[in-house]
Amino acid sequence: MSEYQTAPQHRVRQVARRGHYDRETVHAILDEGLVAHVGFMGAGGPVSPPMFYVRDGESVLVHGSRTSRFMKTLAAGAPLCLTVTLVDGLVLARSAFHHSMNYRSVMAHGVAVPLSAQEKPHALDLFTERVEVGRARVTRPANAIELKATEILRLPLVEVAAKVRTGGPIDDPEDMDLPVWAGVVPLWLARGEPVPCAMEKVEA
Amino acid sequence: MSEYQTAPQHRVRQVARRGHYDRETVHAILDEGLVAHVGFMGAGGPVSPPMFYVRDGESVLVHGSRTSRFMKTLAAGAPLCLTVTLVDGLVLARSAFHHSMNYRSVMAHGVAVPLSAQEKPHALDLFTERVEVGRARVTRPANAIELKATEILRLPLVEVAAKVRTGGPIDDPEDMDLPVWAGVVPLWLARGEPVPCAMEKVEA
Repeated sequence: MSEYQTAPQHRVRQVARRGHYDRETVHAILDEGLVAHVGFMGAGGPVSPPMFYVRDGESVLVHGSRTSRFMKTLAAGAPLCLTVTLVDGLVLARSAFHHSMNYRSVMAHGVAVPLSAQEKPHALDLFTERVEVGRARVTRPANAIELKATEILRLPLVEVAAKVRTGGPIDDPEDMDLPVWAGVVPLWLARGEPVPCAMEKVEA
Repeated sequence: MSEYQTAPQHRVRQVARRGHYDRETVHAILDEGLVAHVGFMGAGGPVSPPMFYVRDGESVLVHGSRTSRFMKTLAAGAPLCLTVTLVDGLVLARSAFHHSMNYRSVMAHGVAVPLSAQEKPHALDLFTERVEVGRARVTRPANAIELKATEILRLPLVEVAAKVRTGGPIDDPEDMDLPVWAGVVPLWLARGEPVPCAMEKVEA
């Protein structure tokens, strides 16, 4: 797939070789993550709340209550930085200095645009499908009151950078004989057995 | 334990009953998380990079390269919002609208202060111990060059709020008989078997 034409100020500078700009890498990270942290200037200074999100082609959608101060600020056009980070491992080196983490992250900069009333039902289906594929067909759809109460914002994927670290520790040559274990502790987001609602009326 | 005296503008407003200000809740979340997203105004607009961090009593420490533009901006006193989010589950409701996530998050606002050269070695030990308890004693400590290359910032925990959602879906009474499964899919950060470095010189 093609690459994002990300401006220099939004490209990875620190360990630039870990920067990736191809759509395949960026989309894969966004499609695996569940929570984005959205950084922007609120009324009282910077904020970076966690938000559920979903990728919709070349956009990321976030949603929230229309009465939320965060959603109001973003809907009014505040520049934002949306970051998704997947933690893949702890990297244990022979020297304290070279300890690290394996991760895959995406940062997207821009301004989000509120969806119209006509666009909302389909967008809400995308959120529901993100929770579980097929679920938009079986749950009760949002009614008029719920649709009105929900603000959905679209951030076009234009100024985008992925940053990825993989592999083992990178120790200095003179440390390689130190008698200390080195390697990677893998980390991933695990899913457990679904727990039925205690108020369940139907069998799972 | 006592409560943070968080100012009104930094308290949870959206679903305020999910806000927590006691040190026990805040510390437990910070001590379980591995990555913070730090929101602040960079030279070109808001940024929210992921950062490894460690709690040190009533502060959170973050570190990075002294040459990093992000660390330079933060060290110069840019107001920041540090957020740690633990994802605990997907909440599947009978209505699309009431789908949710279970999570525990902490947001801390303030200004971070660079540690002095004298404070750095102990702080670096805290980072190493956060990766694995006991590891600061067995790895090669940072040398003078590494210490100088590393910026460590301390954010005092003053303006702090935790937000926590737990439990099953909260459906509307009229939806309780809908024939759709409802409940929670538990999520957690799993740890796998450590993978020794391929360049290993000693037995694990």
